[in-house]
Formats: sequence, structure tokens, C-alpha cells
Amino acid sequence: MTAGGDDRPGGRAGAGVAVRGERLLADIARLAAIGGRPDGGVDRVAGSPADLAARDWLGARIAGAGCLTWRDTTGNVFGRVPGGTGPWLLAGSHTDTVPGGGRLDGAYGVLAALEVLRTLRENDHPAARALEIVSFWDEEGASPTSDGGLVGSTAFCAGDHIADIAAFLEPHIEQGPRMEQAGIDLAVVDGIVGIDRHTVVLTGETNHAGTTPMARRADAARAAARVLVAVRDIAAATDPGMAANVGCVDVLPGAPNVVPGEARLVVEFRAATRAALDLAAARLAGHAEAVARDELCAATVTPLSRKPESRFDPGLRGLLGKACRGLGVPVTSMVSFAGHDAGVLSGHVPTAMLFVPSTGGISHAPAEHTPDRQLVLGCQALLDTVVAWWHGGDARLVTSDLSRGEQS
Amino acid sequence: MTAGGDDRPGGRAGAGVAVRGERLLADIARLAAIGGRPDGGVDRVAGSPADLAARDWLGARIAGAGCLTWRDTTGNVFGRVPGGTGPWLLAGSHTDTVPGGGRLDGAYGVLAALEVLRTLRENDHPAARALEIVSFWDEEGASPTSDGGLVGSTAFCAGDHIADIAAFLEPHIEQGPRMEQAGIDLAVVDGIVGIDRHTVVLTGETNHAGTTPMARRADAARAAARVLVAVRDIAAATDPGMAANVGCVDVLPGAPNVVPGEARLVVEFRAATRAALDLAAARLAGHAEAVARDELCAATVTPLSRKPESRFDPGLRGLLGKACRGLGVPVTSMVSFAGHDAGVLSGHVPTAMLFVPSTGGISHAPAEHTPDRQLVLGCQALLDTVVAWWHGGDARLVTSDLSRGEQS
Repeated sequence: MTAGGDDRPGGRAGAGVAVRGERLLADIARLAAIGGRPDGGVDRVAGSPADLAARDWLGARIAGAGCLTWRDTTGNVFGRVPGGTGPWLLAGSHTDTVPGGGRLDGAYGVLAALEVLRTLRENDHPAARALEIVSFWDEEGASPTSDGGLVGSTAFCAGDHIADIAAFLEPHIEQGPRMEQAGIDLAVVDGIVGIDRHTVVLTGETNHAGTTPMARRADAARAAARVLVAVRDIAAATDPGMAANVGCVDVLPGAPNVVPGEARLVVEFRAATRAALDLAAARLAGHAEAVARDELCAATVTPLSRKPESRFDPGLRGLLGKACRGLGVPVTSMVSFAGHDAGVLSGHVPTAMLFVPSTGGISHAPAEHTPDRQLVLGCQALLDTVVAWWHGGDARLVTSDLSRGEQS
Repeated sequence: MTAGGDDRPGGRAGAGVAVRGERLLADIARLAAIGGRPDGGVDRVAGSPADLAARDWLGARIAGAGCLTWRDTTGNVFGRVPGGTGPWLLAGSHTDTVPGGGRLDGAYGVLAALEVLRTLRENDHPAARALEIVSFWDEEGASPTSDGGLVGSTAFCAGDHIADIAAFLEPHIEQGPRMEQAGIDLAVVDGIVGIDRHTVVLTGETNHAGTTPMARRADAARAAARVLVAVRDIAAATDPGMAANVGCVDVLPGAPNVVPGEARLVVEFRAATRAALDLAAARLAGHAEAVARDELCAATVTPLSRKPESRFDPGLRGLLGKACRGLGVPVTSMVSFAGHDAGVLSGHVPTAMLFVPSTGGISHAPAEHTPDRQLVLGCQALLDTVVAWWHGGDARLVTSDLSRGEQS
């Protein structure tokens, strides 16, 4: 079949086993109803009653497929066919959402993994016994009491069970518009950008907004605004592929008739390389100091947080690319600008991700959407990748499996 | 004497009656102790126990000087010698402060007026019977429940007693650095700037700070920052003498990893003429729209408040200037960039103000300060002006009095 074909891909896929698209789509709809909102969005913040209900539902769904299911002490939900032997290929994502999130972010990856597991089991495919699926706890970090997100995957990698895991695959929606704009059905993710946040504090002098002569003002808000405007240019000059944002702006004391004495920005840079992140930080600090001098203010730039960039495993990326080609989808690779559990796992086991497009680039919002055809196509690509991985067993064998696959 | 003379001006003043500087300064110290802070500042927000205690103290001080005192239903405190006949020349200011304010703002004008009243009375000068002194209620508007300041003077002008008032004089600290920088002891105030506030709302699109391509972002914070930076240039191009401030900046939703979808600024312009204020508003709106287009956002600029500019009475300004010259102080005129009760009164009766310098331009802060010599000098100038006004009686007589005064 080709990417433009019917809604039931996989019938002739390399593995010879096809996922059941309607079943996948029905599960997505059922899960979206748990914490579902009238506007089509989903409220399923980690630890909320809806999130816990969704995890119960998932466990029941895994068990209903004749598989084993369990939950670890963190809250991660797992599934496996009985009688398998490790080490396992882990596949999945998370079922928690941001407040007012969409029906696909995280949920798609978990349900695609479930559909692959039960399809392989129904077809008595031996790869089923090498597959484990997961819904990680609190990926989003949206609860005020959350430890910042990626909680379940981080705890998982610090625990014992990671020793039984040979690799990790995470299907996910892109959450941006690049694939839709380029007309791409599936994309192999090269890695996840590193994310550095910096706090920029401009300190001026609080003063009377009428009586203080304009030329003598040490206006922290004006200095901060000049830094804010420059952030995009600093990023573009450092690495045209990087992203930058100033999402938090605080101006004190915050009265119409008082010259602001202090202003605070949180600047975020995302780039595929540490070198770009460090260069952007240095340029930000230099620019803030120059602006501050010009505005009679002082500037401090302090690192707030640093999430290291991730590079995914070349062997797994090769298998995903092969699966895409087998489904008639040209292989496209891209960097993820959003963080994912796969970023955590990649520090411990060979890891890769597969993206499906996000309509309009919308995510973390009720309008989050991916066409059904692409959701099913991504699920089939996951199944084919799992089977190819099972055939290969290690990187060398994977290579030989790839060459065999090209002849099938 | 000259402006550079000793600390006891007035001995040879035109009126021949000298205020008692030590008594004035001692009263300033006593009043500053009511609501006084360890750091030298004053907490006497209108309606607070300290403000009410200060008004009680003032009434007792007026009565102790052998004068009548009363409080109107608004809370304004008045004083007069017994047996006077209206219409009266009113003099004074206010005794309430901002939180953490200084010892002089408002208090100086009230206590200078008190010193003039009791000095005239002690000297049996007939001008005493034409003078009334006042401490207006809630000039600052610093209480959360305040009606925005200028409460007492506004109520006073809406009441019956304003009909008995022939003119108003308000001594005050400059609250800015201009006089100190220019080495000026006293300044006659031409008028008070008008103050327009505008709310600028930039509306973009809330989005993921990683996955949204930089070129597609409708970043409301970036648009707002560009407008903020331009405000000072808009003001300078419109009227080099005007002041502009952006004291309030709000960026929503306010998360490091979310492209801001909305940003709000409060822009304040202060200028001596309505024409300048209107032109600045038009240029602000035009610039905000142009920036918004460039940033894929929308802009709205809405008037938030408008305080009309005040022009003070030429006759009274002439008398103040004459008094300054009589004390050896060159006549300097300036516009007030801060609002005052005199701005309210000027809409109803001939009004003028006299400024003394503020050290370092500091006001509304514990470090608020004016050298004692200038405080006493201003008080003497007020006395001489009251006497000159009493001699003149109306604008034509004032003119002839001025010419007589020049020969004395």
C-alpha cells in the first residue's frame, strides 16, 4: 500500500500482520471520554480522579486482551503477553494530559502500543512475547504538586525493571505544524532538543513616573523589553533551527505611575546541540549587560533549568525508517522540539520515536487532531518495527534483518 | 537676605513679619513621628489610625495657636483665626502619605500654612483674618478602598464652603530633581501636567514554545515589548517636555514553555497641553497597530483614565514670584509633573503652587528630604504672598501692590 491508500494499512506489510485500525480509533475515543470535556478536550492531569480512572481502564483493556498487566509503585501501567521472556522491547507513552489538553498527546502512543501487542498476540506472532507496553506516570508535570513532569519515566529508569528493557519505542503526535505543512505522514525522530531556561533580572530604580526626568530614569521594564525583543535574533544568529521563548515577564512594583525598578524574564532556548545552547546563553548574557548599561540598570542572567538534548539510537531509527518505506511512506527525519519520556529512556537504553502529524500544529488544546489514516499508519509502522526488531535481536542482526526486509 | 543666607529668612521680608523656622521644623518632626517608621519614612495612608491621629494632632496644634479648627464630613481639617471675614485665601495641602512615604510630601504644605497663620496672628497682622488653612483628606489615593486620590479636595470643591474661598495656595516639595540640579531654592508652578493612561492589549496566539516554528509565532509578549520600547521615543518626538511611563506589564498565560497569547501594558503620558497628550495617544495607537501587524498579532489601545492639565492663576503666580524676589531668590517657573490638590482647586478658584527642592529628586520614599533652609524659605515666601494678596484684594490691586512692593 501507499501513504495515500485506504484506512486499513498493513495487510501486506513486511511483517504480514495488520493492526485493526477501527479498534485503535475506538480505543482512542473511549480513553478520550475519561476526563473528556464538552469542547472535545481532555482534563486528565496526573493523579486526578480522571487520570487514575484512565489507568484503571487501560489495565482492564490490557487484561481484556488476554495479557498481563501491573502497576509499579510510581503509577506506571504495564502490559505483556503471558509467557514472554526478557529483555523486552518497551513501547508506549503516557495517558496523563495538561488541563484542557487533547485526546492524542501521550494517549496515542500508549494505545498504538496496546494495539500492536494484541494484534501480535491474536496472530500468534512470536514478537508478541518480546514486547512490553507502558503508560508512564505524570509526563506533563501539569499538577501544581508535580515534580516537573517526566516523573514516571524518570522513576522507571532509576528502578530495577529498566535492566530488563532492551529498547524503547514511543509513537507520538508531532505537536507542531511542520509535518502537515510538508505533507509528511510519518517521521522518524532523530532526537529531542535540549532545553535551557534562564532567569534575566533587570534592576533599575523605582521612581515617580512624572517628576523623574526621562533621561535620568533607570527603567527596568524598558531594559527588559529590549532584551525580550532581542531574544529571537540571538537564537536565529546562533542556530537557525533553534527555538526561543520568553513566556514569563514580571514588572515591579507594577503601578501605572511608578517607573519600574525591577523586571524579570524567563528565557527558554531549545536546540539540538549543547554548543548552540551554550552560545545562545553567552550571547543573552552579553546583550542583557549591554542593554542594562545603556538603560542605567544592572542585569543578571542565571541558569534556571537545563534539560539535556537527546540523540536517538541509529539502529532503531533505521528500523523505523525501514518500516515507513515498507508502508510506502518516504523516510523523513526531524528533531523533536518538545520533551518526551523517550528523552529520559534514551539515557539508559536504545530509544527512538515515531511522529504522526498534528493538524494545524495544535497540541495541548482541545482541538488537537491527527487524521485517522495517519494514526493507523503510525500504529502499523510501530508493529512492523517491533517485528523487525524481534527478527534482529541486536544491532548487527538488525542490519541483516533490514537487508532481508528489503527483499520481501 | 539672599537665598544663600542664614537659616532664618524673613526678618527683612516685604511684609516685615518673619516666620519662626525652628517652630516649623519642629512641627515637621512631630508630625513625622505619627506613623513614623524606623527607616525615617512615614506610613500614614488616608483613613489609617496614624492618619486620623495626625489629623487630631493638627487640630490640637491649630487650637493651641489660638485658632479655630474644624473638620468637615469628608475629613478635611481646617483652621482660621477667630473673627475673620471671608472670602478667605486658603492655604495648605494634605497630611496623608503613601505607604512608606516621606515626612514632607503634603505635610510640608500644611505645616507651612499653619506657621504662616500663627505668625500673622502673633504679629497681629490683619492678613491673618483673611487666611484659612487646610489639610485635605486622601490626596494620595493609596488605600485599596480609596476613590483614586484627591478625594478631600474634590469633595471640598463640590461642597458649599468653596463659595467662601477666594484663592488657594499650596506649598509643596518638588518631588523631582530639577530644582536641585539647577540650584534653585524656590519655584513658582505654572500648572500641572495632564495625565492620560491607555491600556494597550496585544493579542497573539498561545502556542507550544518548542514545536511552533519561530516564523509562525504570534508572540504577544514580543509585540508588547516592541511597543513598550517605542513609548519613550513617541513621547520625545511629540513634546520634549512630556513624560511617559509603562508601569504595568502583564503577559499571559505566563509559562516558560508557552508562547504568550496576550500581553497588556498600561501606558501613561504626562504633558502640559491637551494637544500633546492627544498627539501622543494617536501615535501610540498607530505604532501599536503597525507592530502588531508585523508580529502577526492584533492591537487595541483604549483610554483608561484622563486627568486634565491645570494652568495656575497668573495673578497669584505673580505674587509668588514677587515674594521670591523679595527674599533674594530669582523667579523660576516650572510645570508640576505630579498631581496635587491645587489641580482640583484651580478649576474653581484662582490657585497657585510654590515648590521647594527635593534632595536627589526622591519622593514617596523614606529618604524624601529638603534642606531646612529651603523649607523655611518657602514658608516665608508663603507668608509674604499671603500678605501681598491681602494688600491687593483682587487682580488689579495685586498688580498695583506688586509695583509698590518693587519699591519697598
